[in-house]
Amino acid sequence: MALLGRARELEADGHDVVHMEIGEPGFPTATPVREAGVRALADGHTGYLPAAGLPALREAIAGHYAVRYGVSVDARRILITPGASGALVVAMAMLTDPGRNVLLPDPGYPCNRHFVELLDAVPRAVRVDAATNYQLTPELADAACDEDTAAMLVGSPGNPTGTLATASELAGLGSLAQQRRIGLVVDEIYHGLDYDGMPAQALVQAPDAIVVNSFSKYFGMTGWRLGWMVVPPDWIPVAEKLIQNLFISASTPAQHAALACFTERSLEIFESRREAFRQRRDFLLPALRDLGFHIPGNPAGAFYLYADITALGDDSADLASGLLEQAGVAVTPGLDFERTAPERHLRFAYTTDTDRLATAVSRIQRYLAAGG
Amino acid sequence: MALLGRARELEADGHDVVHMEIGEPGFPTATPVREAGVRALADGHTGYLPAAGLPALREAIAGHYAVRYGVSVDARRILITPGASGALVVAMAMLTDPGRNVLLPDPGYPCNRHFVELLDAVPRAVRVDAATNYQLTPELADAACDEDTAAMLVGSPGNPTGTLATASELAGLGSLAQQRRIGLVVDEIYHGLDYDGMPAQALVQAPDAIVVNSFSKYFGMTGWRLGWMVVPPDWIPVAEKLIQNLFISASTPAQHAALACFTERSLEIFESRREAFRQRRDFLLPALRDLGFHIPGNPAGAFYLYADITALGDDSADLASGLLEQAGVAVTPGLDFERTAPERHLRFAYTTDTDRLATAVSRIQRYLAAGG
Repeated sequence: MALLGRARELEADGHDVVHMEIGEPGFPTATPVREAGVRALADGHTGYLPAAGLPALREAIAGHYAVRYGVSVDARRILITPGASGALVVAMAMLTDPGRNVLLPDPGYPCNRHFVELLDAVPRAVRVDAATNYQLTPELADAACDEDTAAMLVGSPGNPTGTLATASELAGLGSLAQQRRIGLVVDEIYHGLDYDGMPAQALVQAPDAIVVNSFSKYFGMTGWRLGWMVVPPDWIPVAEKLIQNLFISASTPAQHAALACFTERSLEIFESRREAFRQRRDFLLPALRDLGFHIPGNPAGAFYLYADITALGDDSADLASGLLEQAGVAVTPGLDFERTAPERHLRFAYTTDTDRLATAVSRIQRYLAAGG
Repeated sequence: MALLGRARELEADGHDVVHMEIGEPGFPTATPVREAGVRALADGHTGYLPAAGLPALREAIAGHYAVRYGVSVDARRILITPGASGALVVAMAMLTDPGRNVLLPDPGYPCNRHFVELLDAVPRAVRVDAATNYQLTPELADAACDEDTAAMLVGSPGNPTGTLATASELAGLGSLAQQRRIGLVVDEIYHGLDYDGMPAQALVQAPDAIVVNSFSKYFGMTGWRLGWMVVPPDWIPVAEKLIQNLFISASTPAQHAALACFTERSLEIFESRREAFRQRRDFLLPALRDLGFHIPGNPAGAFYLYADITALGDDSADLASGLLEQAGVAVTPGLDFERTAPERHLRFAYTTDTDRLATAVSRIQRYLAAGG
């Protein structure tokens, strides 16, 4: 966030900055969804909804799972939340207790440890690297578990690496969770923003997992703060009660607007945006590798590349600062995402268009050629 | 919630039910606010906002404090949250730890103990009654504190009683909090819905308190899920970081819409609605007292009357059930709000119009005359 602030300062002083630090799709919410929001407001849909969410929206999400993944999910298991964030608070409240630990892959989404710490539970960083495509494998998880482990929380596609868990990894984590009687939460918030074939679906591979998703990324509704969680049938009442007591309900205009996400017209827009992200990824990944950034694994989803900078320098925070101040390119240093080797990593977000990404690549090239 | 479900069932079967169980103003969001929401969507205000909220909205709230209460509040101390609920999660996360206790007046808002329990802290119910106008006094609080007390959380106007804390009570709680080095949270979500003169303002009386408020009640934006908190200056960074990590930010369309709450046109609507609530209160309070409900204290705010039913029966849950099934009047039994004497109390919400309230009073009268 400090870096974003400095980038804004430079811009206010008249400098041009390519933003590769922002984890938000560079598109406004699609027109049909905004139009549905306008209709909801005109129709006076401004009161509270049931804690579990608008029934039609829960059904629409179930329909989405059926169409996209061929998996049948009872709509009663789908609970609407204030963003994936709300779902993660509820999941952690259900799964853990003070003093118990929750396995989190490292590198990973930095907010995750805060959901764990909110409950005074202990985030346990488990190192993942290129050897496992930056995913938490059942073997790594099993080795990291002890009797105080309450849950595992993984993301696929992951932030900051953009890598996906395989079907067998998800199935193995599901089995491990059952065997050890611990929770498994799979964050699928970047599902739909995946570029190399259909990703494995946790609801298929690990039926007892809690699956978290959101309208923010693929559906382009970041600022509306709308997500959902799929919970095992036995857990519906406790999840619903937590949502009721902690949030009352998720945004009503947002829920009505989100109904329009599942129309053909909207899905065409989302798919064309997905194609734009794919093109950006296909441009940026080889370009950065050509510059000497080591990007192992297969970043097949989300809109991030996570680069090892060892060949180019020994301090990613210095490099990020230099790129921002000298080259006008904002990227995020590894210390936001990991504990093990933060100084060796940078995250590049391709949330801006290919022309701007090309500008960024040229600037980075000149910066590195000039000796940093 | 079970009662609301049963009321809906009866309605689905063709029965008429007067809803006096719903804690939501019976008005849609005011037209100028909905129009501002529509403009926000048309203008593409759909991305994330800074965690602390839209700067113009924080300034507008500061202006509201200046105009309405004559108190100068630095806008940087005002943080926008997903509903008052979000603010209460953040406040509890800042103030308490597992095993410590938080004083909550009993009767009180039922969600409050869940915010405390989320942190594995211990809700400590402190009995309040008509002798203190159902408010937690400094004396009661002091007697209930021990070395494990982390904070006190009070509401003014309160739910379910509609009573207000006096200036000297708030000042005394503020002094007690300082002296004992514990937190004080004042929930002012029903401010503006007060009918007997200007209520005491915690920001004046207890400058170190955390004050929670919302756009839901006076401003009529329930389903948008938008609130705010005012924190002492030293606490701004930690509150902002918690909002960032737990929620990312509050709804963007809602924040833009809420800017329109402070225009003359909107405030006229809110004031006319406030006058409608006052008229309902002035009708319902003597009418219920005439029927034998004992409503002590001065319910000068919110839209609730909390009645002792001792003269009419010995089980408020039975009475609520009878009123719903036999008389078509839905009210909430005391067990939703208190531990001490739930069977002796009912909450009546006057969120429906005076004609319907008159219908309810006639039905209750007939029901009681027939012997219950």
